Amino acid sequence: MTNQDERLAKANQPAIDALRLHPLYRGKIQTAPKCAIRGLDDFSIWYTPGVAAPCKAIQADEELVFEYTNRANSVSVVTDGTRVLGLGDIGPKAGMPVMEGKALIFKYLGGVDAIPLCLKTTSADDIINTVRLIQPTFGGINLEDISQPKCFKVLDTLRADPDVEIPVFHDDQQGTATVLLAGLINALKLTKREIHNTRFALVGMGAANVATLRLLLASGVSMEQIVATDSRGILHRERSDVYAQRKDYPDKWRLCLESNADERRGGIAEALQDADVCIAFATPGPGVIKPEWVKTMARDAIVFPCSNPVPEIWPWEALEAGARIVGTGRSDFANQLNNSLGFPAIFRGALDVRARTISDEMCLACAAELALFAEEKGLDEEHIIPTMSDWDVFPREATATGMKAQEQGLARITISRDDLYAMTSQKMREAREMVELLMREGAIQPIPDA
Amino acid sequence: MTNQDERLAKANQPAIDALRLHPLYRGKIQTAPKCAIRGLDDFSIWYTPGVAAPCKAIQADEELVFEYTNRANSVSVVTDGTRVLGLGDIGPKAGMPVMEGKALIFKYLGGVDAIPLCLKTTSADDIINTVRLIQPTFGGINLEDISQPKCFKVLDTLRADPDVEIPVFHDDQQGTATVLLAGLINALKLTKREIHNTRFALVGMGAANVATLRLLLASGVSMEQIVATDSRGILHRERSDVYAQRKDYPDKWRLCLESNADERRGGIAEALQDADVCIAFATPGPGVIKPEWVKTMARDAIVFPCSNPVPEIWPWEALEAGARIVGTGRSDFANQLNNSLGFPAIFRGALDVRARTISDEMCLACAAELALFAEEKGLDEEHIIPTMSDWDVFPREATATGMKAQEQGLARITISRDDLYAMTSQKMREAREMVELLMREGAIQPIPDA
Repeated sequence: MTNQDERLAKANQPAIDALRLHPLYRGKIQTAPKCAIRGLDDFSIWYTPGVAAPCKAIQADEELVFEYTNRANSVSVVTDGTRVLGLGDIGPKAGMPVMEGKALIFKYLGGVDAIPLCLKTTSADDIINTVRLIQPTFGGINLEDISQPKCFKVLDTLRADPDVEIPVFHDDQQGTATVLLAGLINALKLTKREIHNTRFALVGMGAANVATLRLLLASGVSMEQIVATDSRGILHRERSDVYAQRKDYPDKWRLCLESNADERRGGIAEALQDADVCIAFATPGPGVIKPEWVKTMARDAIVFPCSNPVPEIWPWEALEAGARIVGTGRSDFANQLNNSLGFPAIFRGALDVRARTISDEMCLACAAELALFAEEKGLDEEHIIPTMSDWDVFPREATATGMKAQEQGLARITISRDDLYAMTSQKMREAREMVELLMREGAIQPIPDA
Repeated sequence: MTNQDERLAKANQPAIDALRLHPLYRGKIQTAPKCAIRGLDDFSIWYTPGVAAPCKAIQADEELVFEYTNRANSVSVVTDGTRVLGLGDIGPKAGMPVMEGKALIFKYLGGVDAIPLCLKTTSADDIINTVRLIQPTFGGINLEDISQPKCFKVLDTLRADPDVEIPVFHDDQQGTATVLLAGLINALKLTKREIHNTRFALVGMGAANVATLRLLLASGVSMEQIVATDSRGILHRERSDVYAQRKDYPDKWRLCLESNADERRGGIAEALQDADVCIAFATPGPGVIKPEWVKTMARDAIVFPCSNPVPEIWPWEALEAGARIVGTGRSDFANQLNNSLGFPAIFRGALDVRARTISDEMCLACAAELALFAEEKGLDEEHIIPTMSDWDVFPREATATGMKAQEQGLARITISRDDLYAMTSQKMREAREMVELLMREGAIQPIPDA
């Protein structure tokens, strides 16, 4: 095989394994007891008649639900399956394997008990109403893979609703942008750039790049530094199609008005010319971003083609075309800018201080800690961001997130940095140990050879 | 202490333990992985990019969701907390400890992954809509602790809806009645009664006794054998209050018209006179049924005071008053007519044949198997029903339920009795072994002494 063939074969192997192994395990997440059961008599404590006592206590003081049940450690992963990975509107059933995978990562990396909830609807109102209704059961809600512009309405409505008492987080927006920002911070350091003097090309203006834009602006970037594209090309003042939809897409219309300082026209090719950084959340590749376009970027270009399951350009193609740093969403390449580095720890921190919401500032605090951790380990072109095996980064992120929540008055409880770090570390460690135990003792069968 | 004091102290101990232990464990159910994780690289199989392949396969053939995800083993325990145990409308948060306890039992006895969903609503339509929406995630829905008459509307609407493709089961109706019927079958055997010649007093005509009535009628009992009471006394033709509500309570109105052959008037006292069997699902005792009333029942009376957390009459009081067989809902007395003997196995059987619904005939098949098992073990006054420690009964019930579903054309898959028994046994055994493993290896802390 040529190098190219080998790389493609390696890139396709996960799909082959997934199709072989999903029917074997028939699910990736299950329930397990959290309390001891010495024998069947204990059900008179955990269930009737004894259970009536904690029920009455919660009725008298609703906050006790966080002490007497698993609510404080539970998150629901809510989707309608209308934009699953880069696969589009495949529906709630076809979305299930992704939501179960998400729940698996929530547990393994964050010690968070996450429950998939794939909804048979495509309506924003149905999703909003369901989240409102299920609140008493969960300590947080993770919205996932909901198409735009619906996802903006769902998130913004729920975050603004005073009757919503738990964090509602759209991982494809806030989580993705948090991790992207962490990688960007370090890529800029490596290439000796100041964020204020960096030219950004944002390719694709869906949920992830809208959230990225917001975090960039909050980090001091100005609109003049940005050229953005959507599926119809560069966003500019004469984009009457965006104007017509400005209510559903206010951020895109603002980009039309305020970005693209040198009034470019065209598509991705034109947006990339002389850009220092390309952040793409557009459409699965390969071939969406062409090597010859990367060649026209600035020296030491930073390229983040983040679509899943296949990036807009293969990393090796971007590097051969002159990019100095490339990051993707995939775990099988260097610099995985994957939201798995964010959401488990963000929720760990938010849950452990019983936060009422997850603010942008909490996300920025998490991103800064993530970047700092990688810098302490040592930065180079293939190590701008921690990997999932950097276990120690997760409690640090969780602690940064939870401390910021307290600082902003968004937490229900007060806890010191040291205690929060100890608490988050312990919960994460216990989750991993449980996984290892179940495998070691054969409660989960080993993966058979192909 | 007197005997009486000792009995009361014993009866109150579960509540004391529950208040001590719920805050210690902070939840009774958590998530755990179901698939192997050799290392972080495996997330490229279980999550992006590999997961896209099973997603696309399910999109092409929706039935594959049962093969590629945990849907086929998942049930949601749905409540609005409006009638929790005998505590009444304590709300969804205060209901959480019960729903978690239910989920714990689902796993421990049935190997079923059950997810509490406590809804912030009191509206039947909200519950109905939520169940419709969450269908793609679950293999079944267990309605729980929903007040009447709402619970009738919710169950009947969802069972009649052709777009509902999974079983919707109201445990407080169908589950409770199934176990009650099993105990009754054996109590009648012990007291040498024929069900056709037995006089029944039904005390309290809520969800459980309405469902019990239905199963009694399906078992050959006629209305003339029944005297029923609600909170206002005996149901009879002149009950204009029931007439006024006959649309919401059609079964109660039918009782007014067709039961109570000798035209009694009065309350529980009058209903119990000369009755062979008292089945009470009325309101928590003690003192709701008085010993002097039990004294007026027929010789060798059968008394089932089933309210939780405290039965309408303490078992020792009923026995002292002359009852020959007493069964309650509590695990700390003999003859626990607890739905824990029913729902885990009923769902195990329904899930393993991928049933579209749980019919009354499936419940009757389960009750008959439950009764037969106890008979094979040996019947006496304190052993009319298996206990939860009779592990072997659960796969037998599950198999009886699943075979009936196939016989009725309600199953998605075809499986032989032997294979179904082997499958259900294995899943139940694996669940218990997981619990034992987690405790033995310290992943769940032991219960500390008081």
